[in-house]
Parts: sequence; structure tokens; C-alpha cells
Amino acid sequence: MLVVPEALIADLVSAEDAFAAVEATFAAMAREDAYNFPVVREALGEGRQYGFKSGLDRAGHLLGVKSGGYFPGNADRGIPNHQSTVFLFDPDSGQLKALVGGNLLTALRTAAASAISIDRLARADARVLGMVGAGHQSAFQMRAAARVRKFDKVVGWNYHPEMLPRLAETAAELGLPFEAVSLEEMGAQADVIVTITSSNAPSVMDAHIRPGTHLACMGTDTKGKQEVEAAILARARVFTDEVAQSVSIGEAQHAIAQGLIAEGDITPIGAVINGTAPGRQSDDDITLFDGTGVGLQDLAAADVAVRRAVERGMASDVAL
Amino acid sequence: MLVVPEALIADLVSAEDAFAAVEATFAAMAREDAYNFPVVREALGEGRQYGFKSGLDRAGHLLGVKSGGYFPGNADRGIPNHQSTVFLFDPDSGQLKALVGGNLLTALRTAAASAISIDRLARADARVLGMVGAGHQSAFQMRAAARVRKFDKVVGWNYHPEMLPRLAETAAELGLPFEAVSLEEMGAQADVIVTITSSNAPSVMDAHIRPGTHLACMGTDTKGKQEVEAAILARARVFTDEVAQSVSIGEAQHAIAQGLIAEGDITPIGAVINGTAPGRQSDDDITLFDGTGVGLQDLAAADVAVRRAVERGMASDVAL
Repeated sequence: MLVVPEALIADLVSAEDAFAAVEATFAAMAREDAYNFPVVREALGEGRQYGFKSGLDRAGHLLGVKSGGYFPGNADRGIPNHQSTVFLFDPDSGQLKALVGGNLLTALRTAAASAISIDRLARADARVLGMVGAGHQSAFQMRAAARVRKFDKVVGWNYHPEMLPRLAETAAELGLPFEAVSLEEMGAQADVIVTITSSNAPSVMDAHIRPGTHLACMGTDTKGKQEVEAAILARARVFTDEVAQSVSIGEAQHAIAQGLIAEGDITPIGAVINGTAPGRQSDDDITLFDGTGVGLQDLAAADVAVRRAVERGMASDVAL
Repeated sequence: MLVVPEALIADLVSAEDAFAAVEATFAAMAREDAYNFPVVREALGEGRQYGFKSGLDRAGHLLGVKSGGYFPGNADRGIPNHQSTVFLFDPDSGQLKALVGGNLLTALRTAAASAISIDRLARADARVLGMVGAGHQSAFQMRAAARVRKFDKVVGWNYHPEMLPRLAETAAELGLPFEAVSLEEMGAQADVIVTITSSNAPSVMDAHIRPGTHLACMGTDTKGKQEVEAAILARARVFTDEVAQSVSIGEAQHAIAQGLIAEGDITPIGAVINGTAPGRQSDDDITLFDGTGVGLQDLAAADVAVRRAVERGMASDVAL
């Protein structure tokens, strides 16, 4: 078994790598060469969450599971609240092949998904990027977005305004001016809006959104969470990583529950990548990507880490 | 992270260890100090199966998952068809603590479960052990059974009689005479019957079974499998490792589907261990244990392996 520890991931997997790997996975899912197994997600008490996301990608020759958890007391003890590890198995024999630190990989694969949606669905002339949410993950999302469109400005909003400097710093790192704005002002200025919050009530409302906007809603991965008003989905062309998750635990759960859209209205982004479904059809379309996060993204990103580590002689081999 | 490879398990974990660990787990489950998460089980095609069993035991301070698969082509390549690994996490922080080879542990924990049922439910004066099934696992079941009752004979039956020498050899290892019998003869002679097959149709029929018999049905862990006629469960006092699995994927699925018994008729063996539910109430009771196999058994057995390996300086520590 090869071990690729967390500390090596930053040197091994770039945003470009994650983008290519996740795009290939979404394409394989839409061709039904790859599928995710049912998600296990359990509340352990005292705010702790633990679970497993797993899947099989026949095209990518990947079988595996990401164990992941959120342990809110960790930060006080100097270890990350999020704890993820990816385990890869040989799909032909079931033997454990690799163990890969999964914290940074999770950030990279989540950022890659929204960037893929921007690449495929946003207007080519998009110039202003809107960021809703200023937590740890927001920096990854902003950097990945900046790879696929020539933005000339970032506008941002956060429920806790004292966290906005994180967005300003990341924009500065990218050489982009940053402006803290109201949600109304964001809707008026932004061509692309990325939401990355853990909110239980919508922040972005239907009245805020102009025709032509692309939204990448990346924060909703559980029943009850919500980032944007459901009415937006009724007006938008809706895309997702996995339809089954989108309608049950993704941003679309609310529009589905209210009868505003049906499951058949939601297009897997992989079908757009494969050219079997249209993406944006006019400059006035509102497009919305419901990024729920699937296990196959984790496996694909971990596979890149293993391949790079082997190429560079950085993977340690542990006898089982 | 500590690594305890498969090859060390035989030296580290005895049948006695597995018995004690699994008994404590069943007791914790019945006290609701421990619970199993939903099982993931997927057909990968070409007869290959893969899945994950996971759970939390607050009393035993265990959080983890067993990845397990069946890959029928492996034997031709010199590797076991069954491939299991147990991953243990710190339930307080979510950090990966240990990786433990799971093939032998699975055999030991499955044997321990039937032995626990015999210990708690069979007549004290049981003398003849009946074995239905002669595959790889049958030897483990027989050895574990012989630890908890003073049997003076083993009788055995297998669908493929050419495999019966395995039962004879294991009985000889235990110093017990062995007789190959018909299923009718087994019912007439055996005080305890252990079934360990992967059958899709019942072998042991209601007419075969005398009052006073204890049956440990260990082979049925999937919808559609069946080892004993459902009418036996209507006559018997029925016990199980986990009621939710018993009624859905265990031996009881058929008696439940036919309306012969209700979920409330099935007692968790842990309640018997804890003294909160009666076990056998008369010498004439037929008792039946529906052993479906739960993830917490694997975690408990793996925890023993890790503790023993640490005590003896045999665990390797791998940096994550």
C-alpha cells in the first residue's frame, strides 16, 4: 500500500490537476462509466459529523472511499476540524492500493467543480466575480474561478463582515481589486457568483439576480442547508454534479420540494462536458450549478496525488 | 497511524479475544452505547462485490469502517477472494488511528458471534454439534463452538459432499469424532446446529428440528439468501446481533415477509448478555440466533489487534 500523507498534497496536486481529474470524473459519471455509492453520514453528537463517500469509476480504474468528518473541538487542540482520508482499492482485486491525506484534496476538488461549471456555463465575457462566503474554502473557490475567466474585479459578501479581509487578501494575491458589497449590489455587478457557505437560509434572493448571471452554489450538501432563494432555480437552467444528490441534499432540494422544478429539469454537468446536453444557450440565460460534492471527485483527486507521488519517488510503500 | 498487517493477526488475536470483544460490542449495542451506520454494499459486475460497514461504539471508544469485498477471480492469481481492511479513527478527533488487515478478523468475529449465541442460548448439556456448510469459514465456526460447550461428537452436512473432509479434519483437530449425515439425521442427533452457507434456498427444514435445539444461522447476510425453513423461526425463540439487519438481510427476512413472526419477536443477543431480556427459558425451547454480521464486530476485533500489537511492539507507525 502506498501512503501519500497530507503534508505532501500541496506539492503534488495543483488546481489544474484537480480541474482535469474532476472534469474527467463528471464526464465518466454522465456516460455511466462511473457511479457513486450511497453516502453514509452520521451525527456523532456534540456537533461532530462523520461519514463515508465512495464510488467506482470504471473508465478511470478507480474504486475507493473517502472517510470524512467534522470535529468542532479540534481547532482548540491544534488539529484541523475537518479530517479526511481517501482510500483507493484495486477495482479488479479489491486490494488496498493507497491511502491519501484528504483535507487539501477535498478543498481542491470542491474548487475544481465550481471552476468547471464556470468554464462550461458562464458567459465568455464575464468580468466581475461575486463571492458569497469568506470561510477557509472561499480562497480555493476564488483561485479556481480566476483560472477560467479573465475577471477584472471581485465583489464579496459574508454574513460575518469581519471575515471579508480573507476575500480581499485572496483577490490581491490574484492581482484583482476587491469590493465588499451588499447582496443587492453583488447581483447588480457580478457576472459569476460563487456561494460557499454553510447557511440554513437563503442569502442570495431572486430579486438580486440579473439575466446572464452564472451561479455556482457549492455550500449545500445536507438536508436543510440553503444558499439561494428557490425561485432562482425556477428561472435558471440548472446543472449539477449528481442529480440524485442535487434533489435530496443539494441546493435544488428546496425548489424540488416547492414544486418549482422537477428532477428532469436538472442536467448533469458531465453531459455538457461530453457534448450530449447543451450548456448556456443565450447570453440572457441564468445558469446555476448545484455542486453537492461526490465521492468520485475525491477518488479522482487522490489518484492524481498517488500518480505524481510515484513519478517523483515520494510515496512510501507500507507492507500490509 | 498504526499499521497491523494481515500476516500478524493470527499471532495477535485469539478466538478468546474475539469472543470477549464481540460480546462487549453486542452488549454496548443493546445499551445503545454503540450503533452501526448504514451498510454500503455494491455489485461491481462479474460477480465482484464491494462495500463498507461502519459504526460508533461510545463505550469502547471506537469509530471506524471495514472495507470488504469479494473478488471471485483473485484465487486464480494467488490472492484471497475476500479482501477486507479495517480502518479505526479517533472518535473524539476523527483522526485515522489504525489500519488493520481484516480477512482473518472477519472469520474470527463471525465465529465469535455464533459461539456467543451457543454460550448464552444452547442447553448446558448440549453434546452433539451439527455443522451445515463446509467452506473456509466452517472451521472457524466449529472451533469457536467447541470452546463454549463440551461436545462429544460433530455431525456434518454439505451441499457438495466432496467438501466434507474439511469438517472431519477440523473435528479431528479438536479431538472429536465426525459423522457425515443427512439433514434429517442431523436434526435427530444435533443439540446445536451452526449453518454457514451462502445458499439461496433453505437446507434445514422445520420437520428436521427437535425441541431443545439451538440453531446459529450465520450465512445469510443479503436479501434473497436463506439457510433454514422460515417455519422454524415461528416455532423458535429468535435472537440476533442487530434487529434492523435481521429483518431486512438476515435469516429472519423470510419469516417476516411471510408474516410468521414480527420484528418485535426478535431479541438482540446483547439484551441477553446484559440480563435485560431472557434467553432460553426451558429445555424444550428451540432457540435461533440470526447472525447477520455488523461493522462494530469488525471494529472491536481490530481494536484488539491494535492493542496487542502495541503491547508487543509489533505495530508499525506510519506518518500521515
